[in-house]
Amino acid sequence: MTLIRKSLASLTLLTLLSGCQTAPNTLGGTGDLGVIVERATGSLAVVNTSRQQRVDQVEGLGDLSHASVKFSRDARYAFVFGRDGGLSKVDLLSGEITARVMQSGNSIGGAISQDGRLVAVANYEPGGVKIFDSENLALVADIPATWQDENGQEQRSKVVGLVDAPGNRFVYSLFEAGEIHVVDMNAETPEMTRFTDVGKNPYDALIDPSGRYYIAGLFGEDGLVLLDLWHTGSGVQRILPDYGRGDERLPVYKMPHLEGWAMAGNEAWLPAVGRHEVLVADKDDWALIDRIPVQGQPIFVMSRPDERQVWVSFAHPANDVVQVIDTETRQITATLLPGKAVLHMEFTPRGEHVWISARDSDRVTVYDTRTLQEVARLKSESPSGIFFTDRAHRIGL
Amino acid sequence: MTLIRKSLASLTLLTLLSGCQTAPNTLGGTGDLGVIVERATGSLAVVNTSRQQRVDQVEGLGDLSHASVKFSRDARYAFVFGRDGGLSKVDLLSGEITARVMQSGNSIGGAISQDGRLVAVANYEPGGVKIFDSENLALVADIPATWQDENGQEQRSKVVGLVDAPGNRFVYSLFEAGEIHVVDMNAETPEMTRFTDVGKNPYDALIDPSGRYYIAGLFGEDGLVLLDLWHTGSGVQRILPDYGRGDERLPVYKMPHLEGWAMAGNEAWLPAVGRHEVLVADKDDWALIDRIPVQGQPIFVMSRPDERQVWVSFAHPANDVVQVIDTETRQITATLLPGKAVLHMEFTPRGEHVWISARDSDRVTVYDTRTLQEVARLKSESPSGIFFTDRAHRIGL
Repeated sequence: MTLIRKSLASLTLLTLLSGCQTAPNTLGGTGDLGVIVERATGSLAVVNTSRQQRVDQVEGLGDLSHASVKFSRDARYAFVFGRDGGLSKVDLLSGEITARVMQSGNSIGGAISQDGRLVAVANYEPGGVKIFDSENLALVADIPATWQDENGQEQRSKVVGLVDAPGNRFVYSLFEAGEIHVVDMNAETPEMTRFTDVGKNPYDALIDPSGRYYIAGLFGEDGLVLLDLWHTGSGVQRILPDYGRGDERLPVYKMPHLEGWAMAGNEAWLPAVGRHEVLVADKDDWALIDRIPVQGQPIFVMSRPDERQVWVSFAHPANDVVQVIDTETRQITATLLPGKAVLHMEFTPRGEHVWISARDSDRVTVYDTRTLQEVARLKSESPSGIFFTDRAHRIGL
Repeated sequence: MTLIRKSLASLTLLTLLSGCQTAPNTLGGTGDLGVIVERATGSLAVVNTSRQQRVDQVEGLGDLSHASVKFSRDARYAFVFGRDGGLSKVDLLSGEITARVMQSGNSIGGAISQDGRLVAVANYEPGGVKIFDSENLALVADIPATWQDENGQEQRSKVVGLVDAPGNRFVYSLFEAGEIHVVDMNAETPEMTRFTDVGKNPYDALIDPSGRYYIAGLFGEDGLVLLDLWHTGSGVQRILPDYGRGDERLPVYKMPHLEGWAMAGNEAWLPAVGRHEVLVADKDDWALIDRIPVQGQPIFVMSRPDERQVWVSFAHPANDVVQVIDTETRQITATLLPGKAVLHMEFTPRGEHVWISARDSDRVTVYDTRTLQEVARLKSESPSGIFFTDRAHRIGL
């Protein structure tokens, strides 16, 4: 009897320990955590934004050369979308990969549903969207991106610009097909609405912070496509018809990221394509209001959470520079040198700091956005995307 | 030698266990947690918004009859501001009160600084603001709300409408003095800017989601006072001059909460004072655009995070009703009965649910905001304020 009791007791101890001993930061809030994607090593650095420190490193995530990350509703898990089709669920508290599936041959990002229960992945090869249970990554829906070409043949298209929208919907674009699809996951079986002939080769997209406007950029022609999700019956409309490479065919080193658009007050701030300009448009009628000269081809144009500043990163060869613009005066107030090959910027949730990755300097620099002084520098091998857990609580992020 | 090793091993085990075994929800993300203030019992219910369940109860928090809550930067701790001047720091993971001070005789809410390091409390008695280290609640600054009355005598004033603003600033109003003060905590010693003669008896205030506009309501006269924090040198301005009780002197059962204002697109939606109306104002020039008839005197007018709906709660005697307005058509789309004496509403971060407290029905009802169906009902003794941890990441919340 005594012996049996003893063994039960040690069993309990072991159980408790195995759930508790795994990482240095097991016990703690997850509101000030984040991850840095380290593309060369296929690893994730887990960071703490209160202390500006690395707290863990997670390896074995495959090819992270164009990886993006979403967070679970409880801000504990990161869903990592690898370029090689790998989808991994990482526990930020233990540093463990709790689930992983190779879900396609080539993928380009994902989204998490409004209720946090579903994770969707946009795939290039085979073209389509796969939707998984966020708990265990079990497949819930497989939606091939099929379309009819000019000869009436059914083809599959690469999927780009996948975002979540209110009402447990996912919205995405089909590159070859020139279509936008909206999938409603509240229905018994997923219901899809297709918008065809939206424009030539949509290559990326964004959704505004309220989740109402889905805007896709076109690789094959100038202009942008807007879908008002409050009025899907009205179809898509074309906005900013001159947005693009235009006739001059300047060398475009890298197409700008649409998800980097800044929304400041009633204005949208966006990177011009190929030109050394940041554009300002009116959010009511999408008319172009201003063009602000900058030092290179802009890639990310992001607003500080209080909308007073816009921070701009650039394409090669001017990609060791970040410029800061005052949204009221529209003047450049600072030109900073965070390192070689700046790839991404992420603001802390209330905007006191910004973290900037410089791939070829193997570091992430943290700036105070008020003083514009460096407050910390973290070593990181080929850092690219930086993502903080407050994204879990925002529409479209 | 063997014996010593053994005892070291068990010491390690105990240490690990004591840091890990304290509560049912010790190990977990904190992004989907929240609290319900239970005013009759002076307790806090800790809730999980993914499972719509209570997960813990914390007692011993004193008089919570008009309590409010802010969250630490890591979303692990709740700072509870009691009516009796008690300030408590509660660990949501362990359910323990980790620090508590009786910092005044009577207080009315607080704020947490942009960087998360400071917690400020607005006090009625003695009138002023006290600022504490968020780590251990050690006093950092004690700022009496002094002013000169008409006879040149120095008096102390009650402090109301305390909010945080970008740049580690706190902004608040002095009820008797008719002043607004801005305290900059980035300076070596706190620096204060005073705005005098702003209007008669400011009684409550709000700051907009970008942290730019501070708006105070006046108990002693009609109209609202606006301070543009981007241009403090320009002083305050008066907006919506007819906002208030007016000449008719209708019976006002309860002054509406200003912090409940909804900002939807370029419009501000606000509760009329004493009238059965919700008002819509243009955020550019603060002109009144529309008056929407509702079923009682509105108290809270809050927008769903995607800004498509505005939810309205009411003063006695029509306070068992909540109405939902479509922000585009400005029509009432639903009239719901969540229970007796509805006191507060809180949306989940991305807006799929809203939690509504009904004090005299001893329950909190959770609605799906799309279907407007009840999805859960939680027992709670005299529930009032409901606060979810994503507030940690928002300016002014």
